[in-house]
Amino acid sequence: MATSLILSRRDLDFLLHEWLDVESLTKRSRFTEHSRETFDAVLDLAEQIATDHFAPHNRTADENEPHMVDGKAVLIPEVSKALKVFTDAGLIAGSFDEEYGGMQLPHTVGQAVFAWFKAANVGTSAYPFLTMGNARLLLAHGSQEQIDTFVRPELEGRWFGTMALSEPQAGSSLADITTRAVPQDDGTYRLTGNKMWISGGDHELTENIVHLVLAKIPGGPPGVKGISLFIVPKFLVNDDGSLGERNDVVLAGLNHKMGYRGTTNTLLNFGEGVHTPGGRAGAVGYLVGEQHRGLTYMFHMMNEARIGVGVGATVLGYTGYLHALEYARTRTQGRPPAGKDPASPMVPIIEHTDVRRMLLAAKSYVEGGMALGLYCARLVDEEQTAETQEERSRAHLLLDMLTPIAKAWPSQWGLAANDLAIQVHGGYGYTRDYPVEQFYRDNRLNPIHEGTQGVQSLDLLGRKVVMQGGAGLALLGETIAATTARAAGSEWAGFAADLDAAVARMGAVTATLWGTGEPDLALANSHVYLEAAGHIVVAWLWLEQALACEGAASDFHEGKRQAARYFWRWELPRVNHRFGLLESLDRTVLDTPSHVL
Amino acid sequence: MATSLILSRRDLDFLLHEWLDVESLTKRSRFTEHSRETFDAVLDLAEQIATDHFAPHNRTADENEPHMVDGKAVLIPEVSKALKVFTDAGLIAGSFDEEYGGMQLPHTVGQAVFAWFKAANVGTSAYPFLTMGNARLLLAHGSQEQIDTFVRPELEGRWFGTMALSEPQAGSSLADITTRAVPQDDGTYRLTGNKMWISGGDHELTENIVHLVLAKIPGGPPGVKGISLFIVPKFLVNDDGSLGERNDVVLAGLNHKMGYRGTTNTLLNFGEGVHTPGGRAGAVGYLVGEQHRGLTYMFHMMNEARIGVGVGATVLGYTGYLHALEYARTRTQGRPPAGKDPASPMVPIIEHTDVRRMLLAAKSYVEGGMALGLYCARLVDEEQTAETQEERSRAHLLLDMLTPIAKAWPSQWGLAANDLAIQVHGGYGYTRDYPVEQFYRDNRLNPIHEGTQGVQSLDLLGRKVVMQGGAGLALLGETIAATTARAAGSEWAGFAADLDAAVARMGAVTATLWGTGEPDLALANSHVYLEAAGHIVVAWLWLEQALACEGAASDFHEGKRQAARYFWRWELPRVNHRFGLLESLDRTVLDTPSHVL
Repeated sequence: MATSLILSRRDLDFLLHEWLDVESLTKRSRFTEHSRETFDAVLDLAEQIATDHFAPHNRTADENEPHMVDGKAVLIPEVSKALKVFTDAGLIAGSFDEEYGGMQLPHTVGQAVFAWFKAANVGTSAYPFLTMGNARLLLAHGSQEQIDTFVRPELEGRWFGTMALSEPQAGSSLADITTRAVPQDDGTYRLTGNKMWISGGDHELTENIVHLVLAKIPGGPPGVKGISLFIVPKFLVNDDGSLGERNDVVLAGLNHKMGYRGTTNTLLNFGEGVHTPGGRAGAVGYLVGEQHRGLTYMFHMMNEARIGVGVGATVLGYTGYLHALEYARTRTQGRPPAGKDPASPMVPIIEHTDVRRMLLAAKSYVEGGMALGLYCARLVDEEQTAETQEERSRAHLLLDMLTPIAKAWPSQWGLAANDLAIQVHGGYGYTRDYPVEQFYRDNRLNPIHEGTQGVQSLDLLGRKVVMQGGAGLALLGETIAATTARAAGSEWAGFAADLDAAVARMGAVTATLWGTGEPDLALANSHVYLEAAGHIVVAWLWLEQALACEGAASDFHEGKRQAARYFWRWELPRVNHRFGLLESLDRTVLDTPSHVL
Repeated sequence: MATSLILSRRDLDFLLHEWLDVESLTKRSRFTEHSRETFDAVLDLAEQIATDHFAPHNRTADENEPHMVDGKAVLIPEVSKALKVFTDAGLIAGSFDEEYGGMQLPHTVGQAVFAWFKAANVGTSAYPFLTMGNARLLLAHGSQEQIDTFVRPELEGRWFGTMALSEPQAGSSLADITTRAVPQDDGTYRLTGNKMWISGGDHELTENIVHLVLAKIPGGPPGVKGISLFIVPKFLVNDDGSLGERNDVVLAGLNHKMGYRGTTNTLLNFGEGVHTPGGRAGAVGYLVGEQHRGLTYMFHMMNEARIGVGVGATVLGYTGYLHALEYARTRTQGRPPAGKDPASPMVPIIEHTDVRRMLLAAKSYVEGGMALGLYCARLVDEEQTAETQEERSRAHLLLDMLTPIAKAWPSQWGLAANDLAIQVHGGYGYTRDYPVEQFYRDNRLNPIHEGTQGVQSLDLLGRKVVMQGGAGLALLGETIAATTARAAGSEWAGFAADLDAAVARMGAVTATLWGTGEPDLALANSHVYLEAAGHIVVAWLWLEQALACEGAASDFHEGKRQAARYFWRWELPRVNHRFGLLESLDRTVLDTPSHVL
């Protein structure tokens, strides 16, 4: 295959093999059927299907967004065709158990595989992405009957799934959802309410849709403690697995978005009496796990979803970077400062230093983000398959700590890479004849959904760094210190020293903030904290990558080293201003009364 | 009128009167007919027309972009209607001489007036914006006959104008344009070539279009020294001013953009033989001024255009901010950290500190940008009407120095305000049901056209700070020092001290960079220099605004002070990292070979 503009297989191979050594996972019992060859084969397959079936209709789907006809969401036919190829290849079950028809791939490889589809066409790939998260939640918390009934068809690609949390009046504030689930004598529930922003909430791609719905059972505790989780299928399922009656879940509207248009984003009405399954009112729902524990279950899925969203944000930035790189190599314009003779030929714009600045910055963001996403995926593998309980617990703790960063950092900097990709293209990048403006628009969703940047910052500073007496933060510090120790005596010692200093300062800042005894003050500038922490983590992963290049002299490795130098010299120092602000316990924002704005 | 979401009249009044004291201009002979009352009246008129005729079709124009039918660009009818109201009100000639039907308003007021239209509907307002720049250039460099023939109809709103610089193979690199202009025996020229990215290049809004076209006369010097400027009207003009033959300027295509869709953006073919005026080949053109001086003339217009683009970028950010503020005051969601009881009512999201952070940041960007734009407009008034030659020269020099910043800073930070406005809206901001995503898309053009950010950075560091032995930089430093001196002993003394330090460091950094003797090295990180310089300038203008609030205790003034504090504590320190990088003469980007990317 020619060098792809979707993703860099060379970089994935570097990250998976030269750095994360995923082949070593094949020694673990879960992955003994696998080898470098099987990993390569599935990555080849992903690239091929993404290239042949996903990328070609990315712009078409943007220009022809889903619309409602007779209460149904109508999509361009390319979406269905692409997803059939995807599911026929078994990719939807890639990292699931063989028992459920899966390939039992390591998550690390699974993330790399799925990254091709997100980068090629984020709108189309959202349907299986949501389904995989849905299935994973049910495998963890559903009954065997629920798994057999709903998960199997999902992993066969016959049904797709959603997660239905938000409501029109309650976006980030799940405490305020009002969808009600009333218990019935037969153990089922009847749901009534409205859900907003439900991606994949309706379509004709599959014969059934499995909604996972948050709702409150009357009489339960107030707020988030009274939230339960229900399976609400679009069509009820007969005992033999065939489809039964239409459930009372109705498409009430489609949201029209800036980007990400290929994915239906819906307002769904539950139990409004359009259908009356069994002749009675309310949408039929099946409780998952125990009552009132719905949010805990959902966050199990949300955390994986957040890492997945982070990878999505990274790869949209990544494909933008690759397109900009290709453009900058081929588009000629102007001459360097030292050679202004108009009789001399124009040079490719990559020869202009400021264009290389943009490309190098974008490279550092997207390859840094990819390292972050795959590192987190590796932690998922560790938490599930590491040999000792201690290793599994450590992986779990570190992953918990990194999750808000893995979601938020790429959402900010992958998007920044998309912005740079437009800028590299100049006027052409602003036209719809080139794909980079769509990548930007598609990616602009990522800082919003699955918890906004602000929500992630509160999660990091308000929960993750203080959980277990600060154990997560300490573990992150130890993990980074192990890397910087390896840099001693190398050309990267200066980078390591700067990183050590930044980590130490982060610890001190954290203590200062929480030492105030005032949560409002400690959390007032949480977004600044998130940004600083994110840059430290990605700087660490760039140091990791630089060290993994030891002794390798190819252009590829020199590019890695140059991006690592860039991140060290240009990006890591950004944390100083942020920490200075945090150390000062700046009250500017906190003390701004809303009426003076 | 209710409080507008287009712009803040209160802020404009503050900037124009409490700060810039534009009323004092009425003592000058050019403005004796004016008074606070006439300024107020025209601002009232602008707000009313912008509100009633421009804003209502902003989304409609975005959704129904111009398309070609039978070689003509077809626009929605609202554009023509709005522009008729605008030109009938005499606003196109607002700051032009009474001799040409103008109101002879100060430029400062004229910028504030026109800001309403850009903020309400940047696509529609581009047509008169381009026409005003075109007319101003011809008034400065055209012959009296050219002025009578072309400028008068423009200022009556009967004809519109364009500026046609770029070509498909030559965007930023004007040295490489290939459009040819061959002299004819009658003193006219015949032009052949293709021009790309020509905004307003074709439409049916006016009966004629006056193109100002850069082209090369065969046998002239190579590169930019051989560029001449021509008037090429769409229709030739008879001696009595009536329209004659169709000239050979043909709409070859429309560009389809990410935003700014209401403005036709065209590929124009000149002299391809579609029409043959006078039975001969080539588009008829009239030389403006002297041969080979075209770029100098064009830059006269470009500099004003750049300030205007900066104001446009600011006000798109500004209207986004106002919409976000309104949304944040009315949308309820969640509870503050100290009051998580789900039984308590939800609060307006403006009560969440992180939402106020976004609003305060956006406020500091857009009000800072507006101060910058109006300050530059005030310098135009000074350079044209100040009493002494010395004052006029100083104003000219300072304006020259500030122009790249006035263009680039709002293009970056006005856009950042638009990004924040989307984020404040959450999922709703990502939908096309709310206007903030369009404001973002519209504004994304501004860092590209009229000289990209990279081009501005080379202009600032490569030309402006070194011109006249560094006189421009010195004058900027003196001007800022005069402000900081006024802050002595006030609560703003700390801000002033930080600003003085930053200015001193900028001087030292500039000397370090040019002390290398290597232009490639000095200019390698010019974009970083531009960003630092921009933040210093805007910090200075925030200090100016804070000082102008002295003794005023209203919510409005407290908001100004709070935004000034924000810019001081949160934004100004960003320059330290940038200067550190520049001082180190960092070669990371310069030394990155293109083949390792």
